[in-house]
Amino acid sequence: MSELRKDPIVGKWVIISVERGKRPTDFKVRVHAKKGGFCAFCNGNEHTTPPEIIAVRPDSSKPNTPGWSIRVVPNKFPALRIEPQLNKTSEGLFKKMGGVGAHEVIIESPEHNVTLSTIPLKSVEDTLWTFYRRITDLKKDNRLKYVLIFKNEGDVAGATLEHTHSQLIALPIVPKLVEEEVSNSLKYYKKTGHCIFCDIIRQEKENMVRVISENEHYIALAPFAPRSPFETWILPKKHESSFAPNGTFSLLAQILQKTLKQIDRILNLPPYNMMIHISPFKDELNDYYHWHIEIKPKLTKIAGFEWGSGFYINPTPPEEAAKFMRETDI
Amino acid sequence: MSELRKDPIVGKWVIISVERGKRPTDFKVRVHAKKGGFCAFCNGNEHTTPPEIIAVRPDSSKPNTPGWSIRVVPNKFPALRIEPQLNKTSEGLFKKMGGVGAHEVIIESPEHNVTLSTIPLKSVEDTLWTFYRRITDLKKDNRLKYVLIFKNEGDVAGATLEHTHSQLIALPIVPKLVEEEVSNSLKYYKKTGHCIFCDIIRQEKENMVRVISENEHYIALAPFAPRSPFETWILPKKHESSFAPNGTFSLLAQILQKTLKQIDRILNLPPYNMMIHISPFKDELNDYYHWHIEIKPKLTKIAGFEWGSGFYINPTPPEEAAKFMRETDI
Repeated sequence: MSELRKDPIVGKWVIISVERGKRPTDFKVRVHAKKGGFCAFCNGNEHTTPPEIIAVRPDSSKPNTPGWSIRVVPNKFPALRIEPQLNKTSEGLFKKMGGVGAHEVIIESPEHNVTLSTIPLKSVEDTLWTFYRRITDLKKDNRLKYVLIFKNEGDVAGATLEHTHSQLIALPIVPKLVEEEVSNSLKYYKKTGHCIFCDIIRQEKENMVRVISENEHYIALAPFAPRSPFETWILPKKHESSFAPNGTFSLLAQILQKTLKQIDRILNLPPYNMMIHISPFKDELNDYYHWHIEIKPKLTKIAGFEWGSGFYINPTPPEEAAKFMRETDI
Repeated sequence: MSELRKDPIVGKWVIISVERGKRPTDFKVRVHAKKGGFCAFCNGNEHTTPPEIIAVRPDSSKPNTPGWSIRVVPNKFPALRIEPQLNKTSEGLFKKMGGVGAHEVIIESPEHNVTLSTIPLKSVEDTLWTFYRRITDLKKDNRLKYVLIFKNEGDVAGATLEHTHSQLIALPIVPKLVEEEVSNSLKYYKKTGHCIFCDIIRQEKENMVRVISENEHYIALAPFAPRSPFETWILPKKHESSFAPNGTFSLLAQILQKTLKQIDRILNLPPYNMMIHISPFKDELNDYYHWHIEIKPKLTKIAGFEWGSGFYINPTPPEEAAKFMRETDI
């Protein structure tokens, strides 16, 4: 029998469809073998990208030359740019504004045939530091209200280049999904005096059916109402409203890479999307919103029902997904 | 330069990305040639589907035998079923209920190698009558709050069977996207005394840049903030809160088939999703919400940015899409 489940944060519903129940091997997953060929993100091709914004490289090496381990460059076909004016205008009922913002690419390795789950752990940690440095820098532009960091791994998940990379888009408005999470969390906080994510973590740690793994500072869990099979969230266990190192990103790098390795192992290198949700800049340090990473393997299609309803049909209960993940040796 | 546009109904934003500007021929569209082979929806194979619920067939022909032109059957792998109990329960912070509802398939032709855009106009009209009859019937079950009718054409758009069909899912709750449209429309109505869709139609008819076509009763237009290239809405020109024939569906069949033929011609038989948004059953006849059909060709991928923000990046301005559509002879 199917079950309708409500996400406690934004109130969206999902159908956990046991009739369509699927084990990991039932998904026709596309293994995204890297094809190779000329790649602008590879070591030695630095001159073919726009000039780098920052990089992790030895002090002795020059920008836009080999020797780097992480490199940040502007997206060559940006969805938004820093230069335009905001220019808010309206046309009767319709509102629009100039596409001010930033669109950058974080290249996570100079090597072509690796992924975020196979690069050295130190590089994952450096990638997280790089995210943090870019957020900190973009925050200074007071036209920008939010930075979304995301990663598309595999063509099916929307990656146009196969060389491992994340992206960031800085926006002049807080995106609707984040705004909903933030305002509902604030409502919950006003009612209960608690952060809803902290309460979820507490409840999940009591039941231990959807918890996947944890270390001293972070927890990985399958959310109660996941939009897709094997959706996994990583959260700091103590309340933190925005993405911050607290001295180190090593424990975050560890749990992130472990989670990605588990997903790769169970689902045979599936395409996936990863998103980091942080507090909007205007109220970055707060007691009600809890930053987190969402990882969504791309195993199901978004069709007319999802487009028309905002519901998602998920054939794998998160309790089963979490069990598979826990039992996967990496 | 890119432009950020806000949808006036639910407040979602889209990025019209002119940097990535695309003409129809730029889309690598998958022509979904029908492969054939055994098909449970074909004439003569009626015994291989669950027993039909209703059909358009001569009085002389028996249910579940050949001779029909439209046939409605339960989905063999339903996301929801009529039998279970609602059984609302909660588990701490989490709420769930039994998957009560209905999931039906409307087979729009006994022929395999046709689509909604190539079947006889009379069959399109009969399909619309069939939608209406099923909505009218399901409404009697007071556990159900909404019926979403949708169509997935082509594998990429989520169709698992290639034989032309629509689907309906009846739900025990009003889906979030519809609830947002309805409640924002009500808010607008309370402020202005008008239906927001009626006001949009009035404004679009003054400007005539996003209007695609119209007949005596219906209008087809490209919405101001479309989520995807060539997204098209069809609406009744006079206020109507829910899907109803008003004596005939012939003019609706005409504009719907014309629109689909234009999309097929311009984009070379693209995969697409079609959704019908009607008022929820509990307040079906109202002055604030306007039923409509949304058609979304599946030309772009949903990736990390869209999943994380709820924003959509659309490389084709709707004004250009509408012009292509208007200039397409069918």
